[in-house]
Amino acid sequence: MSGAYVHGYHPQESERLQDQAGTLVDLLHSDTSYPVGSSVLEAGCGVGAQTVTLARNSPGARITSVDISAGSLKQAKAKVDAAGLSNVQFRQADIFALPFEPESFDHVFVCFVLEHLSRPVEALGALKSLLRPGGSITVIEGDHGSAYFHPDSAAAREAIRCQVELQRRAGGDAMIGRQIYPLLVAAGFDAVHVSPRMVYVDSSRPHLVEGFTKKTFTAMVEGVRDSAIEARIVEPELFDAGIRALYRTAEPGGVFCYTFFKGVAEKARRWA
Amino acid sequence: MSGAYVHGYHPQESERLQDQAGTLVDLLHSDTSYPVGSSVLEAGCGVGAQTVTLARNSPGARITSVDISAGSLKQAKAKVDAAGLSNVQFRQADIFALPFEPESFDHVFVCFVLEHLSRPVEALGALKSLLRPGGSITVIEGDHGSAYFHPDSAAAREAIRCQVELQRRAGGDAMIGRQIYPLLVAAGFDAVHVSPRMVYVDSSRPHLVEGFTKKTFTAMVEGVRDSAIEARIVEPELFDAGIRALYRTAEPGGVFCYTFFKGVAEKARRWA
Repeated sequence: MSGAYVHGYHPQESERLQDQAGTLVDLLHSDTSYPVGSSVLEAGCGVGAQTVTLARNSPGARITSVDISAGSLKQAKAKVDAAGLSNVQFRQADIFALPFEPESFDHVFVCFVLEHLSRPVEALGALKSLLRPGGSITVIEGDHGSAYFHPDSAAAREAIRCQVELQRRAGGDAMIGRQIYPLLVAAGFDAVHVSPRMVYVDSSRPHLVEGFTKKTFTAMVEGVRDSAIEARIVEPELFDAGIRALYRTAEPGGVFCYTFFKGVAEKARRWA
Repeated sequence: MSGAYVHGYHPQESERLQDQAGTLVDLLHSDTSYPVGSSVLEAGCGVGAQTVTLARNSPGARITSVDISAGSLKQAKAKVDAAGLSNVQFRQADIFALPFEPESFDHVFVCFVLEHLSRPVEALGALKSLLRPGGSITVIEGDHGSAYFHPDSAAAREAIRCQVELQRRAGGDAMIGRQIYPLLVAAGFDAVHVSPRMVYVDSSRPHLVEGFTKKTFTAMVEGVRDSAIEARIVEPELFDAGIRALYRTAEPGGVFCYTFFKGVAEKARRWA
């Protein structure tokens, strides 16, 4: 799977992911808390953008966070240590070949990971095999096709399309958020429930203007500039006009909308 | 303003608007209730799709519902009478030339109206002049640019674009929902607060699959078929493929997303 990721591996990207987690933490994570004594697998923790929140919201749970990248794991561990949390252990592993016994976890947590995988249903199936019957899985993903804004701009839509196209070429799907329900069903999970988490930003919400529209979404799109131009997906002038138009939506009178999707499902219990 | 409306004037359209109100009534209206004795202007009531809900949720308020179409008013009155409600009076008038004294209403309610107007800020300004200082305005609009779905389909997006384009040619804006905040600010309202109301539909929500994806949204887009073909905006084959693709999103494994926007604002009080 290495090389198949569009973002998360460069220092600026790490900072952006951290900004994202800081801004969106309540919206995405406030309703996830695991019981004392439960074992939780965080699959694909990356640089730990979500790990600190996960560990803090479930202080009595034992969390195992895995990622394929040793460098990312090192950053994630530093974050967790700096936060004074002691309920997380880290392990380097591929999500398709996790070194754990079947049915050894009570819960699985997967955030911003499926978007990078060419076989998300298989990944969910692999995670399901690690869950005990009756255990839960929580999946959180964004969806770049959910972004719209005022003033509308064809150039801005084109710049976003570059990110979607690069992620597609890398084997991922930047519009996966809307698909969480059918993906969990296809992987054989029960009691699937998906709830959208819309981020709505207008001038009355300066924290989100800064933290989401500018520093999270537009910074992410801006981050693919060189790759998109090198891949000849876009002309530099059009891309740059698109980025300016995205920043314009963060000025007075502008509006920006984006939706994350959070799915929770269960692995069926066995009946005697 | 007659002739400038894309929908709401044909029997099937009336039925669709009624279905829409029936399905979305809680999502859009449950947090709107006016005090006993207050006077409320419903500007652009159409066939009364929202009027019954409005009157029922505010039984002690005196509601004045106006529309430019005598035929629509007649249908609206029949609905209100059939519901046994007696707190609504109807009046035929143009939203830009309303026959009321300045500052004669405590509250104004405008739902699915601004999308049809070429000068929405002026309309809001005209309504503001009818509000007493300290009074409130409530604005609800959809946004066709907020529609996305799984499976994604270029043909479906094209069919939706036909509706947007026809509404644009008629002087309206089918993507006005996202603009409610800047429009209310531009019209000089204070304390503007906009909240998105996202409709998320997957196979676990059969009531919304039927009531929203099929009977509200897709039926609405399907309703512009002849106009779009006549206006040469689209080839019939492509449009029909788009409608099939929209219905596909209502089948098992499909997902449909759409967002309405509700804005509430105040007219500033005068200071002595």
